[in-house]
Amino acid sequence: MKQTGGGEDAKRRAGESAAEIPDDGDVVGLGTGSTAAHAIRALGERVDAGLDVRGIPTSFQSRELAREVGIPLTDLDESLPDVAIDGADEVAADGALVKGGGAAHAREKLVDSAAERFVVVADPTKEAERLSHPVPVELLPDARAPVAEAVRSAGGEPELRAAERKDGPVVTDNGNLVLDCAFGEIDDPDALARTLSTVPGVVEHGLFVGLVDEVHVGSDDGVEITSY
Amino acid sequence: MKQTGGGEDAKRRAGESAAEIPDDGDVVGLGTGSTAAHAIRALGERVDAGLDVRGIPTSFQSRELAREVGIPLTDLDESLPDVAIDGADEVAADGALVKGGGAAHAREKLVDSAAERFVVVADPTKEAERLSHPVPVELLPDARAPVAEAVRSAGGEPELRAAERKDGPVVTDNGNLVLDCAFGEIDDPDALARTLSTVPGVVEHGLFVGLVDEVHVGSDDGVEITSY
Repeated sequence: MKQTGGGEDAKRRAGESAAEIPDDGDVVGLGTGSTAAHAIRALGERVDAGLDVRGIPTSFQSRELAREVGIPLTDLDESLPDVAIDGADEVAADGALVKGGGAAHAREKLVDSAAERFVVVADPTKEAERLSHPVPVELLPDARAPVAEAVRSAGGEPELRAAERKDGPVVTDNGNLVLDCAFGEIDDPDALARTLSTVPGVVEHGLFVGLVDEVHVGSDDGVEITSY
Repeated sequence: MKQTGGGEDAKRRAGESAAEIPDDGDVVGLGTGSTAAHAIRALGERVDAGLDVRGIPTSFQSRELAREVGIPLTDLDESLPDVAIDGADEVAADGALVKGGGAAHAREKLVDSAAERFVVVADPTKEAERLSHPVPVELLPDARAPVAEAVRSAGGEPELRAAERKDGPVVTDNGNLVLDCAFGEIDDPDALARTLSTVPGVVEHGLFVGLVDEVHVGSDDGVEITSY
Protein backbone atom coordinates (compact mmCIF):
# COMPACT_ATOMS: atom_id res chain seq x y z
CA MET A 1 0.00 0.00 0.00
CA LYS A 2 1.39 3.38 -1.01
CA GLN A 3 0.26 6.44 0.85
CA THR A 4 2.46 9.10 -0.69
CA GLY A 5 2.41 11.11 -3.88
CA GLY A 6 -1.25 12.10 -3.71
CA GLY A 7 -0.65 15.56 -5.11
CA GLU A 8 -2.20 17.22 -8.11
CA ASP A 9 0.70 16.08 -10.33
CA ALA A 10 0.01 12.43 -9.58
CA LYS A 11 -3.68 12.90 -10.39
CA ARG A 12 -2.83 14.73 -13.60
CA ARG A 13 -0.45 11.97 -14.73
CA ALA A 14 -3.11 9.32 -14.14
CA GLY A 15 -5.73 11.35 -16.02
CA GLU A 16 -3.43 12.03 -18.95
CA SER A 17 -2.44 8.36 -19.15
CA ALA A 18 -6.08 7.23 -19.39
CA ALA A 19 -6.94 9.99 -21.85
CA GLU A 20 -4.53 8.34 -24.32
CA ILE A 21 -6.79 5.30 -24.59
CA PRO A 22 -9.73 6.47 -26.73
CA ASP A 23 -9.44 6.03 -30.50
CA ASP A 24 -11.19 7.84 -33.32
CA GLY A 25 -14.88 7.03 -33.31
CA ASP A 26 -15.03 6.01 -29.65
CA VAL A 27 -17.73 6.99 -27.21
CA VAL A 28 -16.13 7.83 -23.85
CA GLY A 29 -17.73 7.80 -20.40
CA LEU A 30 -16.52 10.92 -18.57
CA GLY A 31 -16.04 10.46 -14.85
CA THR A 32 -16.54 12.78 -11.91
CA GLY A 33 -14.03 14.19 -9.43
CA SER A 34 -10.62 15.84 -9.50
CA THR A 35 -8.62 13.01 -11.12
CA ALA A 36 -11.25 12.28 -13.78
CA ALA A 37 -11.29 16.03 -14.48
CA HIS A 38 -7.63 15.80 -15.51
CA ALA A 39 -8.57 13.02 -17.94
CA ILE A 40 -11.40 15.13 -19.39
CA ARG A 41 -9.06 18.11 -19.88
CA ALA A 42 -6.42 15.92 -21.54
CA LEU A 43 -9.08 14.35 -23.77
CA GLY A 44 -10.25 17.85 -24.69
CA GLU A 45 -6.72 18.64 -25.87
CA ARG A 46 -6.75 15.52 -28.06
CA VAL A 47 -10.12 16.62 -29.50
CA ASP A 48 -8.60 20.03 -30.24
CA ALA A 49 -5.82 18.19 -32.07
CA GLY A 50 -8.36 16.32 -34.21
CA LEU A 51 -9.49 13.24 -32.26
CA ASP A 52 -13.06 12.29 -33.15
CA VAL A 53 -14.79 11.08 -29.96
CA ARG A 54 -18.05 11.79 -28.19
CA GLY A 55 -18.43 11.87 -24.41
CA ILE A 56 -21.13 10.64 -22.04
CA PRO A 57 -20.86 12.57 -18.77
CA THR A 58 -21.41 10.83 -15.44
CA SER A 59 -22.55 14.00 -13.67
CA PHE A 60 -23.46 17.66 -13.93
CA GLN A 61 -19.83 18.46 -13.12
CA SER A 62 -18.33 16.34 -15.89
CA ARG A 63 -20.92 17.60 -18.41
CA GLU A 64 -19.95 21.22 -17.71
CA LEU A 65 -16.24 20.47 -17.93
CA ALA A 66 -16.62 18.48 -21.16
CA ARG A 67 -18.49 21.38 -22.75
CA GLU A 68 -15.81 23.78 -21.55
CA VAL A 69 -12.98 21.77 -23.13
CA GLY A 70 -14.90 21.07 -26.34
CA ILE A 71 -15.73 17.35 -26.17
CA PRO A 72 -18.93 16.69 -28.19
CA LEU A 73 -21.54 14.95 -26.04
CA THR A 74 -23.97 12.11 -26.57
CA ASP A 75 -26.06 9.96 -24.20
CA LEU A 76 -26.75 6.35 -23.29
CA ASP A 77 -29.91 6.28 -25.40
CA GLU A 78 -27.74 7.02 -28.44
CA SER A 79 -24.76 4.73 -27.80
CA LEU A 80 -23.01 2.84 -25.03
CA PRO A 81 -19.44 3.85 -24.14
CA ASP A 82 -16.46 2.05 -25.64
CA VAL A 83 -14.40 3.18 -22.69
CA ALA A 84 -15.23 4.96 -19.43
CA ILE A 85 -12.62 6.87 -17.40
CA ASP A 86 -13.53 7.59 -13.81
CA GLY A 87 -11.96 8.23 -10.43
CA ALA A 88 -12.50 6.40 -7.14
CA ASP A 89 -12.40 7.15 -3.44
CA GLU A 90 -10.66 3.85 -2.73
CA VAL A 91 -9.18 1.13 -4.92
CA ALA A 92 -8.55 -2.31 -3.45
CA ALA A 93 -5.80 -4.63 -4.66
CA ASP A 94 -8.42 -6.85 -6.36
CA GLY A 95 -9.89 -3.91 -8.28
CA ALA A 96 -12.96 -3.40 -6.10
CA LEU A 97 -13.79 0.28 -5.60
CA VAL A 98 -15.58 2.61 -3.27
CA LYS A 99 -17.03 5.59 -5.14
CA GLY A 100 -19.56 8.28 -4.33
CA GLY A 101 -17.59 10.96 -2.51
CA GLY A 102 -19.09 13.35 -5.05
CA ALA A 103 -22.55 11.76 -4.66
CA ALA A 104 -22.55 10.94 -8.37
CA HIS A 105 -22.10 7.19 -8.00
CA ALA A 106 -25.54 6.19 -9.34
CA ARG A 107 -24.91 7.73 -12.73
CA GLU A 108 -21.21 6.80 -12.57
CA LYS A 109 -22.07 3.12 -12.08
CA LEU A 110 -24.61 3.34 -14.88
CA VAL A 111 -22.10 4.77 -17.36
CA ASP A 112 -19.00 2.91 -16.11
CA SER A 113 -20.70 -0.50 -16.10
CA ALA A 114 -22.18 0.09 -19.57
CA ALA A 115 -18.69 0.68 -21.00
CA GLU A 116 -16.81 -1.98 -22.93
CA ARG A 117 -13.68 -1.04 -20.97
CA PHE A 118 -13.75 0.72 -17.58
CA VAL A 119 -10.55 2.54 -16.62
CA VAL A 120 -10.03 3.97 -13.14
CA VAL A 121 -7.69 6.89 -12.54
CA ALA A 122 -6.28 7.46 -9.07
CA ASP A 123 -3.36 8.68 -7.04
CA PRO A 124 -1.50 6.44 -4.54
CA THR A 125 -3.46 7.76 -1.54
CA LYS A 126 -6.54 5.96 -2.90
CA GLU A 127 -4.91 2.53 -2.92
CA ALA A 128 -5.62 -0.02 -0.20
CA GLU A 129 -5.12 -3.74 0.23
CA ARG A 130 -8.81 -4.10 1.15
CA LEU A 131 -11.68 -1.60 1.12
CA SER A 132 -12.46 0.23 4.34
CA HIS A 133 -13.69 3.63 3.13
CA PRO A 134 -17.29 4.40 4.18
CA VAL A 135 -19.69 3.33 1.42
CA PRO A 136 -21.95 6.10 0.10
CA VAL A 137 -25.52 4.88 -0.34
CA GLU A 138 -27.94 6.99 -2.39
CA LEU A 139 -31.51 6.52 -1.21
CA LEU A 140 -35.01 7.84 -1.82
CA PRO A 141 -35.67 10.85 0.45
CA ASP A 142 -38.30 9.03 2.54
CA ALA A 143 -36.21 5.91 3.01
CA ARG A 144 -33.72 7.17 5.56
CA ALA A 145 -34.89 5.27 8.65
CA PRO A 146 -35.50 1.83 7.07
CA VAL A 147 -32.27 2.00 5.03
CA ALA A 148 -30.27 3.08 8.10
CA GLU A 149 -31.70 0.09 9.95
CA ALA A 150 -30.78 -2.27 7.09
CA VAL A 151 -27.24 -0.84 7.02
CA ARG A 152 -26.87 -1.45 10.76
CA SER A 153 -28.12 -5.02 10.28
CA ALA A 154 -25.38 -5.46 7.68
CA GLY A 155 -22.77 -4.30 10.21
CA GLY A 156 -22.48 -0.68 9.10
CA GLU A 157 -22.80 2.67 10.81
CA PRO A 158 -24.78 5.06 8.60
CA GLU A 159 -24.46 8.84 8.68
CA LEU A 160 -26.62 11.19 6.64
CA ARG A 161 -24.34 13.36 4.51
CA ALA A 162 -24.81 16.99 5.51
CA ALA A 163 -24.60 19.69 2.86
CA GLU A 164 -22.37 22.71 2.85
CA ARG A 165 -23.58 26.01 1.38
CA LYS A 166 -27.11 24.65 1.84
CA ASP A 167 -28.91 23.84 5.10
CA GLY A 168 -29.76 20.21 5.74
CA PRO A 169 -28.58 17.18 3.78
CA VAL A 170 -26.77 16.83 0.47
CA VAL A 171 -29.33 16.27 -2.29
CA THR A 172 -27.97 14.32 -5.28
CA ASP A 173 -28.37 15.26 -8.94
CA ASN A 174 -31.24 12.71 -8.90
CA GLY A 175 -33.01 14.44 -6.01
CA ASN A 176 -32.09 11.83 -3.40
CA LEU A 177 -30.13 11.66 -0.11
CA VAL A 178 -26.79 10.00 0.77
CA LEU A 179 -25.92 7.89 3.79
CA ASP A 180 -22.19 7.37 4.31
CA CYS A 181 -21.95 3.89 5.79
CA ALA A 182 -18.84 2.85 7.71
CA PHE A 183 -18.35 -0.93 7.69
CA GLY A 184 -14.72 -0.99 8.81
CA GLU A 185 -12.60 -3.28 6.65
CA ILE A 186 -14.92 -4.98 4.16
CA ASP A 187 -14.20 -8.70 4.02
CA ASP A 188 -16.51 -9.57 1.14
CA PRO A 189 -17.32 -6.51 -1.01
CA ASP A 190 -19.34 -8.60 -3.49
CA ALA A 191 -21.68 -9.95 -0.81
CA LEU A 192 -22.09 -6.52 0.77
CA ALA A 193 -22.80 -5.00 -2.67
CA ARG A 194 -25.55 -7.56 -3.29
CA THR A 195 -27.03 -7.00 0.15
CA LEU A 196 -27.14 -3.22 -0.24
CA SER A 197 -28.64 -3.48 -3.75
CA THR A 198 -31.66 -5.37 -2.49
CA VAL A 199 -32.51 -2.96 0.35
CA PRO A 200 -35.81 -1.20 -0.49
CA GLY A 201 -35.29 2.53 -0.89
CA VAL A 202 -31.64 2.20 -1.97
CA VAL A 203 -31.15 3.77 -5.40
CA GLU A 204 -27.45 2.89 -5.72
CA HIS A 205 -24.47 2.22 -3.48
CA GLY A 206 -20.83 3.10 -4.01
CA LEU A 207 -19.34 -0.40 -4.08
CA PHE A 208 -18.08 -1.20 -7.59
CA VAL A 209 -17.17 -4.89 -7.64
CA GLY A 210 -15.97 -6.80 -10.69
CA LEU A 211 -16.45 -3.81 -13.00
CA VAL A 212 -12.92 -2.42 -13.42
CA ASP A 213 -10.75 -3.41 -16.39
CA GLU A 214 -7.73 -1.20 -15.73
CA VAL A 215 -6.41 1.09 -12.98
CA HIS A 216 -3.99 3.92 -13.76
CA VAL A 217 -2.26 5.20 -10.63
CA GLY A 218 -0.19 8.33 -11.07
CA SER A 219 2.72 9.13 -8.80
CA ASP A 220 5.55 11.65 -8.60
CA ASP A 221 7.53 9.84 -11.25
CA GLY A 222 5.10 8.04 -13.57
CA VAL A 223 1.98 5.96 -13.91
CA GLU A 224 1.47 2.38 -12.81
CA ILE A 225 -1.15 0.47 -14.81
CA THR A 226 -2.85 -2.66 -13.47
CA SER A 227 -5.22 -4.75 -15.58
CA TYR A 228 -8.01 -6.97 -14.20
CA MET B 1 -56.32 -20.78 -9.86
CA LYS B 2 -59.53 -18.75 -9.64
CA GLN B 3 -60.26 -16.26 -12.35
CA THR B 4 -63.75 -15.16 -11.42
CA GLY B 5 -65.22 -12.75 -8.92
CA GLY B 6 -62.92 -9.85 -9.68
CA GLY B 7 -65.60 -7.23 -9.22
CA GLU B 8 -65.63 -4.20 -6.95
CA ASP B 9 -67.47 -6.17 -4.24
CA ALA B 10 -64.65 -8.71 -4.03
CA LYS B 11 -62.08 -5.93 -3.72
CA ARG B 12 -64.16 -4.19 -1.08
CA ARG B 13 -64.50 -7.38 0.99
CA ALA B 14 -60.73 -7.94 0.89
CA GLY B 15 -60.06 -4.33 1.87
CA GLU B 16 -62.57 -4.38 4.71
CA SER B 17 -61.16 -7.67 6.01
CA ALA B 18 -57.62 -6.30 6.21
CA ALA B 19 -58.82 -3.02 7.71
CA GLU B 20 -59.98 -5.00 10.76
CA ILE B 21 -56.38 -5.88 11.64
CA PRO B 22 -54.93 -2.65 13.09
CA ASP B 23 -55.27 -2.11 16.84
CA ASP B 24 -55.22 1.09 18.88
CA GLY B 25 -51.78 2.69 18.73
CA ASP B 26 -50.73 0.98 15.51
CA VAL B 27 -48.93 2.65 12.65
CA VAL B 28 -50.40 1.40 9.36
CA GLY B 29 -48.79 1.38 5.92
CA LEU B 30 -51.44 2.51 3.43
CA GLY B 31 -51.21 0.84 0.03
CA THR B 32 -51.92 2.07 -3.46
CA GLY B 33 -54.53 0.94 -5.99
CA SER B 34 -58.24 0.17 -6.06
CA THR B 35 -58.29 -2.71 -3.53
CA ALA B 36 -56.01 -0.95 -1.04
CA ALA B 37 -58.28 2.10 -1.41
CA HIS B 38 -61.15 0.02 -0.01
CA ALA B 39 -58.96 -0.83 2.98
CA ILE B 40 -58.11 2.83 3.52
CA ARG B 41 -61.79 3.82 3.39
CA ALA B 42 -62.74 1.06 5.83
CA LEU B 43 -59.90 2.08 8.14
CA GLY B 44 -61.13 5.67 7.95
CA GLU B 45 -64.52 4.50 9.21
CA ARG B 46 -62.84 2.76 12.15
CA VAL B 47 -60.94 5.99 12.90
CA ASP B 48 -64.27 7.86 12.80
CA ALA B 49 -65.53 5.32 15.33
CA GLY B 50 -62.60 6.02 17.66
CA LEU B 51 -59.68 3.83 16.53
CA ASP B 52 -56.36 5.50 17.31
CA VAL B 53 -53.96 4.75 14.44
CA ARG B 54 -51.62 6.73 12.23
CA GLY B 55 -51.03 5.99 8.56
CA ILE B 56 -47.92 6.01 6.37
CA PRO B 57 -48.99 6.39 2.73
CA THR B 58 -47.21 4.48 -0.01
CA SER B 59 -48.02 7.07 -2.69
CA PHE B 60 -49.50 10.44 -3.56
CA GLN B 61 -52.80 8.65 -4.19
CA SER B 62 -52.99 6.92 -0.82
CA ARG B 63 -51.91 10.10 1.00
CA GLU B 64 -54.77 12.06 -0.57
CA LEU B 65 -57.30 9.35 0.21
CA ALA B 66 -56.09 8.97 3.79
CA ARG B 67 -56.48 12.71 4.34
CA GLU B 68 -59.95 12.59 2.79
CA VAL B 69 -61.15 9.82 5.13
CA GLY B 70 -59.52 11.33 8.20
CA ILE B 71 -56.61 8.97 8.98
CA PRO B 72 -53.85 10.95 10.80
CA LEU B 73 -50.55 10.60 8.97
CA THR B 74 -46.96 10.05 10.02
CA ASP B 75 -43.80 9.02 8.15
CA LEU B 76 -41.01 6.46 8.22
CA ASP B 77 -38.63 8.89 9.96
CA GLU B 78 -41.09 8.97 12.86
CA SER B 79 -42.04 5.30 13.18
CA LEU B 80 -42.03 2.06 11.21
CA PRO B 81 -45.42 0.45 10.41
CA ASP B 82 -46.86 -2.26 12.65
CA VAL B 83 -48.89 -3.46 9.70
CA ALA B 84 -48.99 -2.53 6.02
CA ILE B 85 -52.02 -3.21 3.80
CA ASP B 86 -51.38 -3.11 0.07
CA GLY B 87 -52.70 -4.51 -3.20
CA ALA B 88 -50.87 -6.47 -5.88
CA ASP B 89 -51.06 -7.00 -9.63
CA GLU B 90 -50.41 -10.71 -9.24
CA VAL B 91 -50.16 -13.03 -6.23
CA ALA B 92 -48.46 -16.41 -6.63
CA ALA B 93 -49.38 -19.47 -4.58
CA ASP B 94 -46.13 -19.12 -2.59
CA GLY B 95 -46.90 -15.48 -1.70
CA ALA B 96 -44.55 -13.86 -4.22
CA LEU B 97 -46.04 -10.73 -5.78
CA VAL B 98 -45.80 -8.55 -8.82
CA LYS B 99 -46.60 -4.93 -8.00
CA GLY B 100 -46.11 -1.62 -9.76
CA GLY B 101 -49.11 -1.29 -12.07
CA GLY B 102 -49.59 2.11 -10.43
CA ALA B 103 -45.84 2.88 -10.70
CA ALA B 104 -45.70 3.29 -6.91
CA HIS B 105 -43.79 0.08 -6.19
CA ALA B 106 -40.58 1.75 -4.96
CA ARG B 107 -42.32 3.47 -2.09
CA GLU B 108 -44.68 0.52 -1.65
CA LYS B 109 -41.77 -1.87 -1.17
CA LEU B 110 -40.13 0.58 1.21
CA VAL B 111 -43.21 0.85 3.44
CA ASP B 112 -44.45 -2.74 3.04
CA SER B 113 -41.06 -4.30 3.82
CA ALA B 114 -40.56 -2.01 6.82
CA ALA B 115 -43.83 -3.25 8.37
CA GLU B 116 -43.90 -5.83 11.12
CA ARG B 117 -46.78 -7.54 9.27
CA PHE B 118 -47.46 -7.10 5.56
CA VAL B 119 -51.00 -7.91 4.44
CA VAL B 120 -51.95 -8.09 0.76
CA VAL B 121 -55.50 -7.48 -0.39
CA ALA B 122 -56.65 -8.85 -3.73
CA ASP B 123 -59.51 -10.26 -5.75
CA PRO B 124 -59.41 -13.71 -7.35
CA THR B 125 -58.35 -12.40 -10.77
CA LYS B 126 -54.96 -11.55 -9.25
CA GLU B 127 -54.20 -15.09 -8.13
CA ALA B 128 -51.86 -17.35 -10.09
CA GLU B 129 -49.97 -20.57 -9.43
CA ARG B 130 -46.75 -18.86 -10.57
CA LEU B 131 -45.97 -15.28 -11.50
CA SER B 132 -46.15 -14.32 -15.17
CA HIS B 133 -47.31 -10.69 -15.06
CA PRO B 134 -44.80 -8.25 -16.61
CA VAL B 135 -42.51 -6.86 -13.91
CA PRO B 136 -42.49 -3.05 -13.62
CA VAL B 137 -38.96 -1.72 -13.21
CA GLU B 138 -38.47 1.88 -12.07
CA LEU B 139 -35.25 3.34 -13.39
CA LEU B 140 -33.31 6.59 -13.51
CA PRO B 141 -34.35 8.63 -16.57
CA ASP B 142 -30.99 8.24 -18.32
CA ALA B 143 -30.74 4.51 -17.70
CA ARG B 144 -33.24 3.27 -20.26
CA ALA B 145 -30.88 1.69 -22.81
CA PRO B 146 -28.49 -0.11 -20.39
CA VAL B 147 -31.35 -1.34 -18.19
CA ALA B 148 -33.30 -2.59 -21.23
CA GLU B 149 -30.19 -4.49 -22.31
CA ALA B 150 -29.80 -6.02 -18.83
CA VAL B 151 -33.48 -7.05 -18.83
CA ARG B 152 -33.06 -8.75 -22.19
CA SER B 153 -29.98 -10.56 -20.88
CA ALA B 154 -32.13 -11.83 -18.01
CA GLY B 155 -34.65 -13.21 -20.50
CA GLY B 156 -37.17 -10.35 -20.42
CA GLU B 157 -38.77 -8.10 -23.01
CA PRO B 158 -38.81 -4.49 -21.74
CA GLU B 159 -41.32 -1.87 -22.83
CA LEU B 160 -41.21 1.76 -21.74
CA ARG B 161 -44.50 2.62 -20.07
CA ALA B 162 -46.21 5.35 -22.08
CA ALA B 163 -48.22 7.99 -20.27
CA GLU B 164 -51.82 8.93 -20.89
CA ARG B 165 -52.96 12.54 -20.50
CA LYS B 166 -49.30 13.51 -20.94
CA ASP B 167 -47.08 13.07 -23.99
CA GLY B 168 -44.16 10.67 -23.67
CA PRO B 169 -43.48 8.23 -20.84
CA VAL B 170 -45.03 7.79 -17.41
CA VAL B 171 -42.90 9.66 -14.85
CA THR B 172 -43.10 8.22 -11.33
CA ASP B 173 -43.70 10.17 -8.13
CA ASN B 174 -39.88 9.94 -7.73
CA GLY B 175 -39.24 11.52 -11.14
CA ASN B 176 -38.17 8.28 -12.82
CA LEU B 177 -39.32 6.08 -15.74
CA VAL B 178 -40.89 2.60 -15.80
CA LEU B 179 -40.05 -0.36 -18.02
CA ASP B 180 -42.67 -3.12 -18.02
CA CYS B 181 -40.63 -6.29 -18.45
CA ALA B 182 -42.31 -9.47 -19.71
CA PHE B 183 -40.44 -12.60 -18.60
CA GLY B 184 -43.21 -15.13 -19.32
CA GLU B 185 -43.71 -17.52 -16.42
CA ILE B 186 -41.09 -16.73 -13.79
CA ASP B 187 -39.43 -19.93 -12.55
CA ASP B 188 -37.36 -18.38 -9.78
CA PRO B 189 -38.74 -15.01 -8.65
CA ASP B 190 -36.13 -14.69 -5.88
CA ALA B 191 -33.21 -15.06 -8.30
CA LEU B 192 -34.78 -12.67 -10.79
CA ALA B 193 -35.45 -10.16 -8.01
CA ARG B 194 -31.79 -10.26 -6.95
CA THR B 195 -30.62 -9.91 -10.54
CA LEU B 196 -32.83 -6.89 -11.22
CA SER B 197 -31.81 -5.22 -7.93
CA THR B 198 -28.15 -5.19 -8.90
CA VAL B 199 -28.64 -3.64 -12.36
CA PRO B 200 -27.15 -0.11 -12.35
CA GLY B 201 -29.84 2.50 -12.96
CA VAL B 202 -32.64 0.36 -11.49
CA VAL B 203 -34.29 2.20 -8.60
CA GLU B 204 -36.73 -0.57 -7.70
CA HIS B 205 -38.51 -3.48 -9.36
CA GLY B 206 -41.99 -4.84 -8.75
CA LEU B 207 -41.07 -8.36 -7.57
CA PHE B 208 -41.92 -8.73 -3.88
CA VAL B 209 -40.45 -12.05 -2.73
CA GLY B 210 -40.55 -13.34 0.82
CA LEU B 211 -42.18 -10.18 2.16
CA VAL B 212 -45.85 -11.13 2.52
CA ASP B 213 -47.27 -12.35 5.84
CA GLU B 214 -50.92 -12.66 4.88
CA VAL B 215 -53.09 -12.48 1.75
CA HIS B 216 -56.78 -11.58 1.94
CA VAL B 217 -58.63 -12.53 -1.24
CA GLY B 218 -62.19 -11.28 -1.49
CA SER B 219 -64.78 -13.04 -3.61
CA ASP B 220 -68.51 -12.89 -4.23
CA ASP B 221 -69.25 -14.71 -1.01
CA GLY B 222 -66.48 -13.96 1.47
CA VAL B 223 -62.77 -13.58 2.09
CA GLU B 224 -60.11 -16.26 1.97
CA ILE B 225 -57.09 -15.60 4.17
CA THR B 226 -53.73 -17.29 3.59
CA SER B 227 -50.78 -16.87 5.96
CA TYR B 228 -47.11 -17.26 4.99
